[in-house]
Amino acid sequence: MSPYKSVETEDKSSDVVWHLASVTHEQRVASLGHNPAVLWFTGLSGSGKSTVANVVDKLLHELGCKTYLLDGDNVRHGLNGDLGFSDQDRVENIRRIGEVSKLFVDAGLLVSTAFISPFNADREMVRELLADKQFVEVYIDTPLEVCEQRDPKGLYKKARAGEIKNFTGIDSAYELPQHPEIHVKTAEQSIKECAEQVVNYLKDNGYINASSS
Amino acid sequence: MSPYKSVETEDKSSDVVWHLASVTHEQRVASLGHNPAVLWFTGLSGSGKSTVANVVDKLLHELGCKTYLLDGDNVRHGLNGDLGFSDQDRVENIRRIGEVSKLFVDAGLLVSTAFISPFNADREMVRELLADKQFVEVYIDTPLEVCEQRDPKGLYKKARAGEIKNFTGIDSAYELPQHPEIHVKTAEQSIKECAEQVVNYLKDNGYINASSS
Repeated sequence: MSPYKSVETEDKSSDVVWHLASVTHEQRVASLGHNPAVLWFTGLSGSGKSTVANVVDKLLHELGCKTYLLDGDNVRHGLNGDLGFSDQDRVENIRRIGEVSKLFVDAGLLVSTAFISPFNADREMVRELLADKQFVEVYIDTPLEVCEQRDPKGLYKKARAGEIKNFTGIDSAYELPQHPEIHVKTAEQSIKECAEQVVNYLKDNGYINASSS
Repeated sequence: MSPYKSVETEDKSSDVVWHLASVTHEQRVASLGHNPAVLWFTGLSGSGKSTVANVVDKLLHELGCKTYLLDGDNVRHGLNGDLGFSDQDRVENIRRIGEVSKLFVDAGLLVSTAFISPFNADREMVRELLADKQFVEVYIDTPLEVCEQRDPKGLYKKARAGEIKNFTGIDSAYELPQHPEIHVKTAEQSIKECAEQVVNYLKDNGYINASSS
């Protein structure tokens, strides 16, 4: 259908109708064909958050969902490039990621985020920003020993040597998620199985079409 | 095609391939069917930025494009709720909107922004963040007298009375865009015509399918 026709019709009355013109959240969602949400991956450094989030994002994309992934690569040097690692800046880091996630959800996307986000208060702050069921907490539960053994960026080694301070799991706490929607154990499953666990949750809970395969 | 089949195949080698799995910008764009960009609407308060941006967003949505609109309503009280109106905060306001726009463009959307953004340096900062042709400056050129007559929020009246300081157009400069991609005169055209001018630019320059109607 040509939008110009309806424009023509509505325009006959007056330009005033155009001041009210806007695409509603419902219209954006309808055009995308799935229920938007933020998949908030949380876990220790080296737990596999980013890896699993990337695979979930890829699987959802292949299922035809409109998706995006926020992680250190595209957020830390851009939007949050002005923030350091003080307690205050860490909270602000998570707050901004939460607010941006909310904008993506408003746009209708399934957005994944992959940040350690070690504190319950910060994760709950983001949950509060979003509507019911739009915040899906995905706890990537990997034993510290396993993360430290993987140590893909050599950060644990530096933290143990005292070269990095306030490193989560070493000299800063990781607060366990109290009621995560999804609890993923990467040390007991393959990455593929972990990602499918997340996708299956989305199917079982009506975010995406359960018949998609 | 089932994504699980390809997963099955690739998984035979090892989980390692999954560490490389990610949806590329090109794949996101291909799935959306238009070339992403930020439509950066700039102009005086009351110039019609937000109105025209909303109509453009609606027309693009009706053409099947995946779009989003950033404006004071969804940004000022959320992501930028911690910012005031100092010179420093005004720059930071625009910087963050630019960075978030960049994320939406990376996700493949046509995102419109509607902020006064009176300074060339700030607008150029955002242009520099984005790749060539991904920043489309839309100058909403409405004479100050017309804006002041419209005064939809009563802000000009307050600025003239000295109740608001540093108000753009009154006691703070609006720097004219030097080379805006689109120059829209709302006092000489209907809102519909203004919006169509923007949409036609996007068609003529290959952002959206020229045969869409």
